[in-house]
Amino acid sequence: MKKFTKLENGGVSAPKGFLATGVFCDIKRLGTGKGSEKGQKPDLGIILSVIPATAAGMFTSNKVAAAPVRLCVERIKNGVCQVIVANSGNANACTGRQGLADAYKMAEIAAKSLRVPKEHVLVASTGRIGIRLPMKNVISGIHNAVSQIYESSPDPTEFARAIMTSDTRLKQCAVEFKLCGKNVRIGAACKGAGMIHPKMVSPSRLLHATMLAFITTDASIDPVALQAALELAVEQSFNRITVDGDTSTNDTVIALANGLAENPEITADSLQDPNGQQFQSALNFVCLELAKMIVMDGEGASKFVTVKVSGAETDTDALAVARAVANSVLVKTSWNGGDPNWGRIIDAVGYSNATVDEQKIDIGYSIPNSRKVLWACKKGTPTKTSFKALCDVVANKEFTVQINLNLGNSSATMYSTDLSEEYVDFNKGTITDPANLGG
Amino acid sequence: MKKFTKLENGGVSAPKGFLATGVFCDIKRLGTGKGSEKGQKPDLGIILSVIPATAAGMFTSNKVAAAPVRLCVERIKNGVCQVIVANSGNANACTGRQGLADAYKMAEIAAKSLRVPKEHVLVASTGRIGIRLPMKNVISGIHNAVSQIYESSPDPTEFARAIMTSDTRLKQCAVEFKLCGKNVRIGAACKGAGMIHPKMVSPSRLLHATMLAFITTDASIDPVALQAALELAVEQSFNRITVDGDTSTNDTVIALANGLAENPEITADSLQDPNGQQFQSALNFVCLELAKMIVMDGEGASKFVTVKVSGAETDTDALAVARAVANSVLVKTSWNGGDPNWGRIIDAVGYSNATVDEQKIDIGYSIPNSRKVLWACKKGTPTKTSFKALCDVVANKEFTVQINLNLGNSSATMYSTDLSEEYVDFNKGTITDPANLGG
Repeated sequence: MKKFTKLENGGVSAPKGFLATGVFCDIKRLGTGKGSEKGQKPDLGIILSVIPATAAGMFTSNKVAAAPVRLCVERIKNGVCQVIVANSGNANACTGRQGLADAYKMAEIAAKSLRVPKEHVLVASTGRIGIRLPMKNVISGIHNAVSQIYESSPDPTEFARAIMTSDTRLKQCAVEFKLCGKNVRIGAACKGAGMIHPKMVSPSRLLHATMLAFITTDASIDPVALQAALELAVEQSFNRITVDGDTSTNDTVIALANGLAENPEITADSLQDPNGQQFQSALNFVCLELAKMIVMDGEGASKFVTVKVSGAETDTDALAVARAVANSVLVKTSWNGGDPNWGRIIDAVGYSNATVDEQKIDIGYSIPNSRKVLWACKKGTPTKTSFKALCDVVANKEFTVQINLNLGNSSATMYSTDLSEEYVDFNKGTITDPANLGG
Repeated sequence: MKKFTKLENGGVSAPKGFLATGVFCDIKRLGTGKGSEKGQKPDLGIILSVIPATAAGMFTSNKVAAAPVRLCVERIKNGVCQVIVANSGNANACTGRQGLADAYKMAEIAAKSLRVPKEHVLVASTGRIGIRLPMKNVISGIHNAVSQIYESSPDPTEFARAIMTSDTRLKQCAVEFKLCGKNVRIGAACKGAGMIHPKMVSPSRLLHATMLAFITTDASIDPVALQAALELAVEQSFNRITVDGDTSTNDTVIALANGLAENPEITADSLQDPNGQQFQSALNFVCLELAKMIVMDGEGASKFVTVKVSGAETDTDALAVARAVANSVLVKTSWNGGDPNWGRIIDAVGYSNATVDEQKIDIGYSIPNSRKVLWACKKGTPTKTSFKALCDVVANKEFTVQINLNLGNSSATMYSTDLSEEYVDFNKGTITDPANLGG
């Protein structure tokens, strides 16, 4: 049970019946003349399921929602989707009615080209805020991508590249496992490096979603079960990461399940059964792998820090403490300097809104794959652990901050980065570019 | 009415009957040998009112409260105080029972030396967290400071210097005004440059306070009225500033009023009368001046940015939007680059928890002392204002971001800085120093 194999270089087309590709169509309108496509990173991608798939989604809780998010929220209700069109370079956010019309137009063009009902097409965008999509380029991009799919030359890695913005690395993952003797796969691709502090909710609770993640599977699962499984997986992965504490207007996770693995359908009722749990654990793994990739590739990040809070009175308290520490500018700058500054950590614990008792707070550091915790602070006061020993842990590229509130049994984990001069330099922006409105 | 004169170079001893000074006693234990005091910034200061004064205070809402804050919260209840002892270099936070005993000892030593009841002494500390105060040095410092006061050589500017930590500039202010024909003065000194995002509450609501501010006045005012006036003034000044979004364990504002101006006593009832309002407006002015000084001297700060939110449904919503924008890492880095990136601003508005309607949000920029607002975004979409014109505003050392939610009549203002590479570099810390646990 709960066993699965990670596939090498697997992405969104690892499961049966999924095709994906990416093309360059100059969404940032960088070039004009011929030949501008040569060597350019693709900026528009398409995922196609060869048959209609069950669909589920989680979207940003930011009340300023981009047009593609609005479209997805509307259409995901149907629980069915066959095509996802995604672009980078432009978030199609703060673009008003025209932006919404453009998002629907993107879907319509893709639907026509691929001969699927337009209601079965979802869209996602990431990039600049407040600028209209260059629809001529987008349409030409969609046609080129569709041609690649029809000519059987799609390249899923090009899809993963197409959605990258400030990302420096490809983010893909795929696993394989058995359900009732059938081979089932889950594949995924995502992007995100800045404006990362997702707090996504299911569309039913949605007010409005720059991290994008697309998950494909050939498992057979009904829409209610897929949505429930996705919510659980996202809550423990994408919703537990932060790079800069800024929750984007475009955060989107979409999962498609086309059933071609022919396992007995997982339903809401059977999600707790061994088969359902096998699916859930594989989905959890894929989402957490991708979420960690986003943090590791965070803008200017040199450290991957896990913040583990235990002993809280409630889950809400545990998460509040983990978020406060993971987002503290002073804590993150100290990590950048390799400084085991638990004074700043306990300060963040104290202002987190959680119930805490200073005289019960323990704070320690550990390295990955080690159970040994070096405690810097016990019961709110310093321990005798040597400063050098603490520095040695924090000098690692990856380490864990352990916070025990010693008040109850609730725990929470957040994944964060340091805050570096490189981050600031990157985000100062190139103000000579009038369209540099990041989002 | 509401007229007052700002005094040149005035500080805490501008009002009648207040003496203040500062001495170096090596709280950071930098040096050892003789002569280490030569040229060193003072690190311990004393304010003395020659007669017992009415006292009021506001302290951090951080649940991890430093020992001196606990002492103040306990003693301020009496509404009377004659002496304040303050030190920099050590926050006396996370120091357990011993730390609390040390804070009471500081007060006791000062009380004995100055021959006042120990209950009439308040203490305040700022600096490193998690390290015991070097009591021998502290005691010797108190004796030296008292000697200066007795030998009539106190220097209030040395007091203001004594409380500085990463501050690069002195922060003092004093005003004079008339109450019923009597000359009344308010003087003040404060410190703060990092870990600045005060959210102070009155002791009655207190869970537990690194900005410190000390306000003295020779006005005659009862303790209830002084507390009420202070709360109002702090709420619109110190509680509206942010440098890095980290709320300290030591934030403290103390006001002392010794009545030597001999005006008719201001009571809770008469606070709304013209005399009370004159006092209130002068107090508001002094607090806001000091609060702005803190922001202008923010660690690594190159910009002073006022965030004005209007048209919110409630005051809570207005403040939530102002705080989200003023604390956004992405917004603050864009300011550092002189980039009028309203996309990041509207993103922060959207995740602020306030009720907002994207299609009603206006965002603009203006320069100090100008009523002209350059609108970058109207009704959630870009205006035709030229990018260059917006850049010209944001290129200023001081500018205002104007956000109109167009939903109601509530408004709020926050004062913030940019986030610079210098800030990160400064806060990476000097990890070779085992005691570098900032707070």
